[in-house]
Amino acid sequence: MVERVALYPGTFDPVTNGHLDVISRAARLVDRLVVGVAMNIGKGPLFPLEERAELVRAETDKIAARTGCVIEVRPFTGLLIGFAREVGAQMIFRGLRAVTDFDYEFQMAGMNARLDQEVETVFLMASERNHFISSRFVKEIAQLGGDISTFVPALTLERTLAKTRKTAAE
Amino acid sequence: MVERVALYPGTFDPVTNGHLDVISRAARLVDRLVVGVAMNIGKGPLFPLEERAELVRAETDKIAARTGCVIEVRPFTGLLIGFAREVGAQMIFRGLRAVTDFDYEFQMAGMNARLDQEVETVFLMASERNHFISSRFVKEIAQLGGDISTFVPALTLERTLAKTRKTAAE
Amino acid sequence: MVERVALYPGTFDPVTNGHLDVISRAARLVDRLVVGVAMNIGKGPLFPLEERAELVRAETDKIAARTGCVIEVRPFTGLLIGFAREVGAQMIFRGLRAVTDFDYEFQMAGMNARLDQEVETVFLMASERNHFISSRFVKEIAQLGGDISTFVPALTLERTLAKTRKTAAE
Amino acid sequence: MVERVALYPGTFDPVTNGHLDVISRAARLVDRLVVGVAMNIGKGPLFPLEERAELVRAETDKIAARTGCVIEVRPFTGLLIGFAREVGAQMIFRGLRAVTDFDYEFQMAGMNARLDQEVETVFLMASERNHFISSRFVKEIAQLGGDISTFVPALTLERTLAKTRKTAAE
Amino acid sequence: MVERVALYPGTFDPVTNGHLDVISRAARLVDRLVVGVAMNIGKGPLFPLEERAELVRAETDKIAARTGCVIEVRPFTGLLIGFAREVGAQMIFRGLRAVTDFDYEFQMAGMNARLDQEVETVFLMASERNHFISSRFVKEIAQLGGDISTFVPALTLERTLAKTRKTAAE
Amino acid sequence: MVERVALYPGTFDPVTNGHLDVISRAARLVDRLVVGVAMNIGKGPLFPLEERAELVRAETDKIAARTGCVIEVRPFTGLLIGFAREVGAQMIFRGLRAVTDFDYEFQMAGMNARLDQEVETVFLMASERNHFISSRFVKEIAQLGGDISTFVPALTLERTLAKTRKTAAE
Repeated sequence: MVERVALYPGTFDPVTNGHLDVISRAARLVDRLVVGVAMNIGKGPLFPLEERAELVRAETDKIAARTGCVIEVRPFTGLLIGFAREVGAQMIFRGLRAVTDFDYEFQMAGMNARLDQEVETVFLMASERNHFISSRFVKEIAQLGGDISTFVPALTLERTLAKTRKTAAE
Repeated sequence: MVERVALYPGTFDPVTNGHLDVISRAARLVDRLVVGVAMNIGKGPLFPLEERAELVRAETDKIAARTGCVIEVRPFTGLLIGFAREVGAQMIFRGLRAVTDFDYEFQMAGMNARLDQEVETVFLMASERNHFISSRFVKEIAQLGGDISTFVPALTLERTLAKTRKTAAE
Repeated sequence: MVERVALYPGTFDPVTNGHLDVISRAARLVDRLVVGVAMNIGKGPLFPLEERAELVRAETDKIAARTGCVIEVRPFTGLLIGFAREVGAQMIFRGLRAVTDFDYEFQMAGMNARLDQEVETVFLMASERNHFISSRFVKEIAQLGGDISTFVPALTLERTLAKTRKTAAE
Repeated sequence: MVERVALYPGTFDPVTNGHLDVISRAARLVDRLVVGVAMNIGKGPLFPLEERAELVRAETDKIAARTGCVIEVRPFTGLLIGFAREVGAQMIFRGLRAVTDFDYEFQMAGMNARLDQEVETVFLMASERNHFISSRFVKEIAQLGGDISTFVPALTLERTLAKTRKTAAE
Repeated sequence: MVERVALYPGTFDPVTNGHLDVISRAARLVDRLVVGVAMNIGKGPLFPLEERAELVRAETDKIAARTGCVIEVRPFTGLLIGFAREVGAQMIFRGLRAVTDFDYEFQMAGMNARLDQEVETVFLMASERNHFISSRFVKEIAQLGGDISTFVPALTLERTLAKTRKTAAE
Repeated sequence: MVERVALYPGTFDPVTNGHLDVISRAARLVDRLVVGVAMNIGKGPLFPLEERAELVRAETDKIAARTGCVIEVRPFTGLLIGFAREVGAQMIFRGLRAVTDFDYEFQMAGMNARLDQEVETVFLMASERNHFISSRFVKEIAQLGGDISTFVPALTLERTLAKTRKTAAE
C-alpha cells in the first residue's frame, strides 16, 4: 500500500469551525495531511502568517489523535502546486460551500491541473452545521461586536476578540 | 394581530430604482418598514452615510402614502442583526437579482440565523425592469459620462452627476 | 393594521422536515398561513392529494399553537395565482434550498408577477439542518430500504414505509 | 497504513470517456476502487445492467495496470450508502462537470452524510477534454446518427451503434 | 463580404414572445436566419411539428421586413450540427435566460464544438420583459386556465386556448 | 449585404490564450472586429494600457490572415457602449467561462441594453482547452514563479516574466 498524503491549503485568517470540519473529514481519508497556511498576497490579513498557523495547530492535535492521521501545519509562500510537490502530496483537498466557491475552485483546479498533472484536486463538502461559515464574515461580525463563539474554536475566539477590541480602541 | 415590522438594509451608494422597487414591494407586506443605511466598512463610498440616507428618504414618502406602510430611513453602523433587534424587526428583507447575489445572501442569512434565531431573512425579487440594476454599475456608468437617468430617481441623478462631474474636473 | 395572509404551496409528496421548517418560519411572519397542496400534474405522486394534505395537517396544529398563527391546509387544483387570490393571500412563500431551485423559482415568480402584480412571491431559506432534504430523495431512499426517520415527521414515516413495503411485496 | 477503498457509483448508460477520466484519477488516490453500476430506477436505460458493467470492465484493466490500483466493477440495486458500507469504502467519488451537477450532487451528498457519517463524499473534476461529455447527449447524438467516437471508448462505440442502428431499423 | 447565415434551433412548443425577442435580435446580426423547429424526441409536444413551424412563420414576416434579414422557418429531425451544415450556417444562436439554461447550453455547445469545429455557438440574452417566459410554463398556465396573452403572439394564443379547452372538455 | 462589425472589449492584463481563442472565433463571424482594450478603472494593472494593446496586436495579424477578418486593436477609456457606437459595431462579443462570469456579464449586458438598444451583446464560449484560463490567475502564478507558458502567447510570456522578475528583485 502506498502512503496517502494530502495538502489542505488556505489562508486561515482566522481558522473557523468550517475549516476544522474539513480537516477532520480529510484526516479520515489519508495517512498524512499537511495543512498549508498561505501567505495571502493582496489583502492585509487580520493575523500574521505564523499566528494563523499557530491557531490552526492548536486544534489539530485532537483531530490527529482521534483519526490516527499525521497532521502537520506549515506556512508557505510560493506556488500551491510547488508546495504540494514539496510535501509529497498526491492530492489537494478543497472545502466547498456554495456556487461562487465552486466556480472559483473549479478554475483554480483547472489551472493547477495544467501546471502539474500528478497532483489531483479533490473537493470535500463542509457539514450542514458549518456550511455557511466564512472567515470574512467572522471578521466582520467580530469587528462589529457580534458573537462569533459558535463559528471559531476557543483560542481563535480569544485572539480575535483581543485583536478587534484593540483595533476599536485605537 | 401583531404589528409586522421589517428591516431592509443596504449601503444605498446611491439608491437605485431597483432598491425602490424592493422597498415598494416590502411596504405592501408589513406595517412598518425600516430602511437601514449601512456604514459600509471597507470600500470608500461615493456619498457620505447621511447623504445616502437623505437620497433614500426623498423617495420613500410617496411609497409610504401609496401603501399605507410607515417607512423610516435610518443609518446604522453596528451589526445588522443587532440593528434588526433594536428596531423591533421580525424579518430582514433582501432583494435578489441573480445567482452570485443569491449565494452571498444565502451565506449571510445562514450566519445571521445562527446569531439570532428570532429574526427571519426573507428574499424579494426585483421586478423585470429593475432586475439588472446595481449601484456599482450605476457609479461606473456615471463616471464614464453615461446616461443613468433610467436607473436612479431624479434627486439621486442630480447629485450623482454633480459628484462625478466634480471628480472629473479635479 | 392589516391582516397578513400568506400561501405556502407545494406538492408535499410527502411532507418533509424541510417543509415543516419553512412552515414554522412562515407562521411567525403572518397572521394566517394557507398551506396549499397542489394536484401535481405530470408525475404520478406516491400519495393521493387528500392523504398528502392529511399528513401536512397532522403537523401544523403544534406549529399553530406555538406561533399563534392560524394555519389552514387546503388541496388545490387550478392556477397557483388564482388560488392565492381566492384565499386572500398578499404573498406566496417559497422555500429555497439551492441554485437549481432558485432558478426555477425565479422564473415561476417572474411569470406569476406578470399574471397578478398584487401577490408578491417571498423566499425563505430552509435551516441548516433541513437544507438538503427533498421529497424526491426521501422517496428514493425509502424505496431502496434506507432510513428516512430524520427527514420526515413520525406519521409520514409510518405511511411512507407502509407504502413502499407494499410496493416491494407486489 | 490503512487500506484506502473508494466507491465510484453511476448508471454508466453507457460509460463515456468522461467516466473513464474520473476512474483514472480516482485510481491514483486509493488502493482499491469499486465502480458501482446502479440499477437506475425510473428511466429505461439503453443497455441492461450487466452489459453496462461489462462495458466499464472492458476499460478498467488498463487503468488498473497503469495505476496499481485494484479496480472492481460491480452492479448494485439497493441504497448507495448501503453498498458503500458493503464494499468497505471510506469514501464515495463523484465526478463534477458543472453547476447543475454540483447542485444535485451537493444535495445527495448532504442526505448521504445524514444516513452514514462514516462514508465521505469526495468530488473530482473531469479533465478539460472530457468536461462536456454526458451519457445523455452521447445517446441523443448516436440516435440521430452523429459521430460519438471521441466521447466513448471503442467497445462502447460499437455496441451503441449496433443498438441505435437496430432501433432505427424497427 | 461574406454572407452571414445563422441557425436558431428550438422545439417552439409553442413559440413565445421570448423566442420572438431572440429572433428579432438575431435578425439584426446576420443576412439570413434559419429558424429550425426540432422534432423533439422524448416528450409528447402540445403541437405537431408542422403546426409549430407554422406558428413561428406567422410572426417572422414582420421581423424580416423590419430588419431586412431573410428568415426561413424549417422543421428538422436529425442532428443539430448536421442541419446547421445543411443550411450553410456559420453560427448557431441560442437564447439564454438563466443559470440552469446556461449550464445545459454550455454542455451542448461543448459537445457540438467537438462534432463540428466550423460552426460556432453564439448566445443572445432575452430582453428584460421576456426574461422569465418559458414554453413549459406557458403550457402549464394555459392548461390551468390562466391568462397567457402577454407571453405568446396572437395566433399562438388562439391555437393554444383551442387546444387546451379541447383537452379539458375530453 | 451589410458590413458586420463587432467589438470585443476587455482589460487584457495580459492577453491570454483564452482571449485569443475568443478573438479567433469572433473573427470567423464578422467582417471587421475591433478589440477594445479598456483603461480598467480601479485596480492597478500589471501592464500600462498601450503595452496591453501592443501585446494583443502582436497576435492578431495571424488571426486576421487566417480568417480574412479585418482586426483592429484600440485602447479606449470611456463608456463601453459609447465606444461600440463610435467604431460602428452592431454587436459586442463577450467570452464566457463559467457561472460567476455569466452572472456578471448578464447584468452588464442588461444595463448596456438599456443604454443603447441598437448594440447587441453576444456571448461566445471559450474552447475546452482555454476554459479555465484567467488573467488574474496567470499573474498570480507568474508572481509566485510558476510556469505560465501554456496560458499566454510567446511575447506576453516574455514580458510578464521580465515584469515579475523585476518586481521580485526590488
